[in-house]
Amino acid sequence: MKTHQELLKKLRLLKEEAGSHSPSIITIKEGVPELEVKVDACFLSNPYATELFLDYFKRELIDTGGIKDLLEFYPSQNKVIAESLSGVIGIHPDNIFIGNGAIEIIQTVIQKYTKKKIVINIPTFSSYYEFVNDDVEVIYNKLYKENNFDLNIDEYVELVKHERPDTVVLINPNNPNGGYLSSEKIAHLLRELRDVKNFILDESFIHFAFENEYYDLKTASNLVYKFPNLILIKSMSKDFGIAGIRAGYAVMNSRRVQELLLNGFLWNSNGLSEYFFRLYTRDNFLSEYEAVRVKYIKETQEFIKELNQIPNIKVYPSMANFALVEILNGDTSDDFVFNMLIKYGIYLRTCSDKIGINGEFVRLASRTKSENKYIIESFTKELSK
Amino acid sequence: MKTHQELLKKLRLLKEEAGSHSPSIITIKEGVPELEVKVDACFLSNPYATELFLDYFKRELIDTGGIKDLLEFYPSQNKVIAESLSGVIGIHPDNIFIGNGAIEIIQTVIQKYTKKKIVINIPTFSSYYEFVNDDVEVIYNKLYKENNFDLNIDEYVELVKHERPDTVVLINPNNPNGGYLSSEKIAHLLRELRDVKNFILDESFIHFAFENEYYDLKTASNLVYKFPNLILIKSMSKDFGIAGIRAGYAVMNSRRVQELLLNGFLWNSNGLSEYFFRLYTRDNFLSEYEAVRVKYIKETQEFIKELNQIPNIKVYPSMANFALVEILNGDTSDDFVFNMLIKYGIYLRTCSDKIGINGEFVRLASRTKSENKYIIESFTKELSK
Repeated sequence: MKTHQELLKKLRLLKEEAGSHSPSIITIKEGVPELEVKVDACFLSNPYATELFLDYFKRELIDTGGIKDLLEFYPSQNKVIAESLSGVIGIHPDNIFIGNGAIEIIQTVIQKYTKKKIVINIPTFSSYYEFVNDDVEVIYNKLYKENNFDLNIDEYVELVKHERPDTVVLINPNNPNGGYLSSEKIAHLLRELRDVKNFILDESFIHFAFENEYYDLKTASNLVYKFPNLILIKSMSKDFGIAGIRAGYAVMNSRRVQELLLNGFLWNSNGLSEYFFRLYTRDNFLSEYEAVRVKYIKETQEFIKELNQIPNIKVYPSMANFALVEILNGDTSDDFVFNMLIKYGIYLRTCSDKIGINGEFVRLASRTKSENKYIIESFTKELSK
Repeated sequence: MKTHQELLKKLRLLKEEAGSHSPSIITIKEGVPELEVKVDACFLSNPYATELFLDYFKRELIDTGGIKDLLEFYPSQNKVIAESLSGVIGIHPDNIFIGNGAIEIIQTVIQKYTKKKIVINIPTFSSYYEFVNDDVEVIYNKLYKENNFDLNIDEYVELVKHERPDTVVLINPNNPNGGYLSSEKIAHLLRELRDVKNFILDESFIHFAFENEYYDLKTASNLVYKFPNLILIKSMSKDFGIAGIRAGYAVMNSRRVQELLLNGFLWNSNGLSEYFFRLYTRDNFLSEYEAVRVKYIKETQEFIKELNQIPNIKVYPSMANFALVEILNGDTSDDFVFNMLIKYGIYLRTCSDKIGINGEFVRLASRTKSENKYIIESFTKELSK
């Protein structure tokens, strides 16, 4: 039996090796097999949607033997999958680019279109500034904890007009805090910033946000027709809980889609991501998905409310499927994360590697109802001391 | 019941839409559901290896429920998979780059490293010249049917030294004819052309080539230590019959691997390709694979020998898992392909869209023994008239 200190040492080493991302749960399990990971609260996904997808997967691909064709044959080309996705997202196929995960699209648009200067709000998802070419100037627009990490729209517009970047990036809801800009505010920003060549809007967490009591899904994707500078990026890993499949898409100006497809991205989807995209267009799957989406949002909001009752932490407002939590018990965020992993088997995301965040912060994903309950109990136990 | 002419019209339309690649079998089945496709001889893969992979897949992922983790969680990052692959291919992990299929690597190296001029043998796999940036000069080195599409080494070296390109591309065995350059010749070319910045060697079909009676696998990958300009690209879709999974790798100078990983390719593998790469390193899988590799090579060479007996075609020598066949019965290659599909359900690859090939050519894949038998019988029936 390893001591707490020995486990800590091993975990610190794994974290160091992973750089600005967290070591995956597999890496943790392989590197520190003594640990029992009970809840992966680092992992941002709707677990009910994973179950739903797995039901279809089992019924339609495993039980029928159809999986063989998906593994053996070449998937369809990019524009064929774009055509099938077109109806369900209400966007013309010429404006859709299919990615091997959203991360491929982030890499591509940042490297291809950002030539001069980029304005990025921080804290944020690090790939947006890590993927820029060496000669691009990065302007960080800091969001302050004193303002709940909210974006001040007027100051932001002023900053962008002053800096004149070729690219701005907004993540809505933002990662890692979950701050949400209403669709009205996004439209306002697009109007104000129509001179910025690339307006990147990452809606990877938009399925968890809502503006009315019916939890209706809001997206800015159809603004692409009005604002040709809009590059909307959407991961499917979070809302559908299928990160291993690698599925994402972008909605953008048709000229850009054409330009990208002219010299590449021929078979960048795999057989399973093609299956997923086609499943996503089907009515029965969609209505079942809508039910688990709303169920998960309700549970997530309830979870955040309960977190708010726990002493020695501060929970920031979120419209995503996670909450940014400030640790006020004197621990560093890394030590708090390792401690919760060793003592309770709960794996959290430390924010110590994120730039633009002062203080000790962790990001905490909402999981299943029973897992959330276990998290609340463990946090309460640990933090009420 | 559609007439032959109506089916022909539909097929011609699908071919037009697919550009310089063939419409996939799924596109054909969806577009012309009246057709019964019995043998997909367009598809270049070892069907026995597909079966072997599916055995493991079913036993280890489906029966155990392990598939859930692969679909749900993020796969490992590029360098983690490179480390696991290192042992089996005998290359240091720093020299390995993992791709979302070989096609992603082709796109990346051609767009990133080819700045000026590229020398490409034709006929060849079209992506190599289609993916170049607009301002790159493409020099086509024509291979002649009169010479069995063999590369004349001395003339080639002379051409390259005269043209002074920054990139040369060799596919070994070559696609679409299967012509093979011995490992000795490849080493000679690398010595002669060490001043060319990027020496791209595509070994996607190398598992089907052999130089001795034991069918020992030959690869030039370890020459990367001696020739830092070597960029060796390897698809896993052909030898393992798993095109839907999207798995490929490159072996190159560690500086290049590092450069690529510095700004991207973070999660470009999916859960299944990671599973495949890890499986590929295991002794039991490897020895079973070696058996089906040799079995398939023997059957393929036997198939090519039998094709040679059929009148009104000419079969070119091949060390790959396909043969380039010249149609000498007066049909155009497109019409021959459509005809064989409508009358016999055999789907062939027309070469009408390939540049650098004069005459009517089709590419014919070796499939299972019984499928090959059916192809021989159908060809004999059709061409003996």
